[in-house]
Amino acid sequence: MNFRDELAERAKVVNKALDQCLPSVNAYPPAIHQAVRYSVFAGGKRLRPILVLAGAEAVGGNTETVMPAACAVELLHTYSLVHDDLPAMDNDDLRRGQPTCHRAFGEAMAILAGDALLTSSFNVLAQLPQSAGVAPERVVRVISELAQAAGTQGLIGGQVVDLASEGDTVDEDMLEYIHTRKTGALIRVSVRAGAILSGASEAQLQKLTDYANSLGLAFQIVDDILDVVGDEQIIGKPVGSDQRNQKATYPALFGLDAARQKATEAAETALSSLNSFGSEAQFLRGLVQFVINRNQ
Amino acid sequence: MNFRDELAERAKVVNKALDQCLPSVNAYPPAIHQAVRYSVFAGGKRLRPILVLAGAEAVGGNTETVMPAACAVELLHTYSLVHDDLPAMDNDDLRRGQPTCHRAFGEAMAILAGDALLTSSFNVLAQLPQSAGVAPERVVRVISELAQAAGTQGLIGGQVVDLASEGDTVDEDMLEYIHTRKTGALIRVSVRAGAILSGASEAQLQKLTDYANSLGLAFQIVDDILDVVGDEQIIGKPVGSDQRNQKATYPALFGLDAARQKATEAAETALSSLNSFGSEAQFLRGLVQFVINRNQ
Repeated sequence: MNFRDELAERAKVVNKALDQCLPSVNAYPPAIHQAVRYSVFAGGKRLRPILVLAGAEAVGGNTETVMPAACAVELLHTYSLVHDDLPAMDNDDLRRGQPTCHRAFGEAMAILAGDALLTSSFNVLAQLPQSAGVAPERVVRVISELAQAAGTQGLIGGQVVDLASEGDTVDEDMLEYIHTRKTGALIRVSVRAGAILSGASEAQLQKLTDYANSLGLAFQIVDDILDVVGDEQIIGKPVGSDQRNQKATYPALFGLDAARQKATEAAETALSSLNSFGSEAQFLRGLVQFVINRNQ
Repeated sequence: MNFRDELAERAKVVNKALDQCLPSVNAYPPAIHQAVRYSVFAGGKRLRPILVLAGAEAVGGNTETVMPAACAVELLHTYSLVHDDLPAMDNDDLRRGQPTCHRAFGEAMAILAGDALLTSSFNVLAQLPQSAGVAPERVVRVISELAQAAGTQGLIGGQVVDLASEGDTVDEDMLEYIHTRKTGALIRVSVRAGAILSGASEAQLQKLTDYANSLGLAFQIVDDILDVVGDEQIIGKPVGSDQRNQKATYPALFGLDAARQKATEAAETALSSLNSFGSEAQFLRGLVQFVINRNQ
């Protein structure tokens, strides 16, 4: 199986688990469960949950055991997209080619759907000792790390600074601040969560953290580049939106060539962080290539 | 010390703990921390955190140990108020006599402040094993119960049905559905959290749950009554707002006298749930009287 097929295969397994961990659209009150499912199943590469599974794999863990954590990070990621899209925030009408949650269900329901996704992310994690026999101390650690990655020093902090900086000149420091929080924090906690739940040593965790930091940077730079040169049909949203919204991006700050160079360097750093791992980290290595070469 | 003074004393201790568990207004990015602190310190009786402490006390636990859990439920309660007040939801300009978060800081910041409060609620809980030496299995159980009380079968579900029913005729079943979720769920998990973290037996937990269910009902009915007959200066918001917004309430459904009767019955049930407890539940008993007799 080539890497792209394997990735699609894993995304399918994640989708099945997400389907099982969410209440049905008929569960009362149905409106909120419809909005939640609509947002979760609007597409997406499932990169973060796949990173949870791969983080477990890299330290000899069981991917099935950590699957609820994989779902938890995707729920949390989806919450952040639903709230970021709101009229008071980025005011986006489309996400992956589909109407955003608030366009489809109204603003109140989109706020509540985001709240529900965030809340259920912690609920799903808290079931791990019962559902999969994971040691509670590992679960509490992951909950703590996820909450911090999502909090005012993580995702939320990144969004606050991103909103405040629109239209301003953004320097490299601020660009890095925004990206390490809006994208990097959740990518990092995904890899770490899989590893922590599988009993990784602190040394293994440090190397996986270095890997995730570099992978997150490469991912974000490529995202910025695709917004400039990507194919609208493939990426599912209009290109050039960052420029129109005067968003800070790597290509805007450094130019396309230097941004590409930075992405390549980050990819190399990610790969070298895995030097002490053997074949169990093969999938994490493959992800680096995928992130660099992706066209969506 | 009379009960009202003791309540004020406990609220003061809770406020101090809340102050310590939140980042300072100067923490970067300051805007979000200002909005969070503004919302948390806009007043409030601190009933829920005080119930956490009293739940611990009733089973011989240490109130200092469970204080972070007391803060967690108040942060979560505050998140629900901030989001409920938003223009897309109840569109309230005032809360406890002060401009609501979105009136003071804008809509985007209010959405993010609510998100931050919800997230930090779980983060604060997840620190309990490290900060207070509480067994991780108890902490995970409380996180699970809090997430469920806040989720689509709890707070969020109640808000969805409440929004959907505005202007409709609401029968007793639906009124009960809304109130047990919007008010009851968090009151119940507050008492249970304090008790669970303190090692309560399942039998003790069941009785405290019965107590909390009845207390929550009494609290809600009195709230509804105060919206009809309360003193605007004392309760800090215009009276009659439920009627203007065509909200379902106990007085609207049953009339004032029958609503008062129901509140008294719920209070009696709450008290009798504590029959097997001794003086360690004296504060929980006092709370029943307070809830019934309050004028704000």
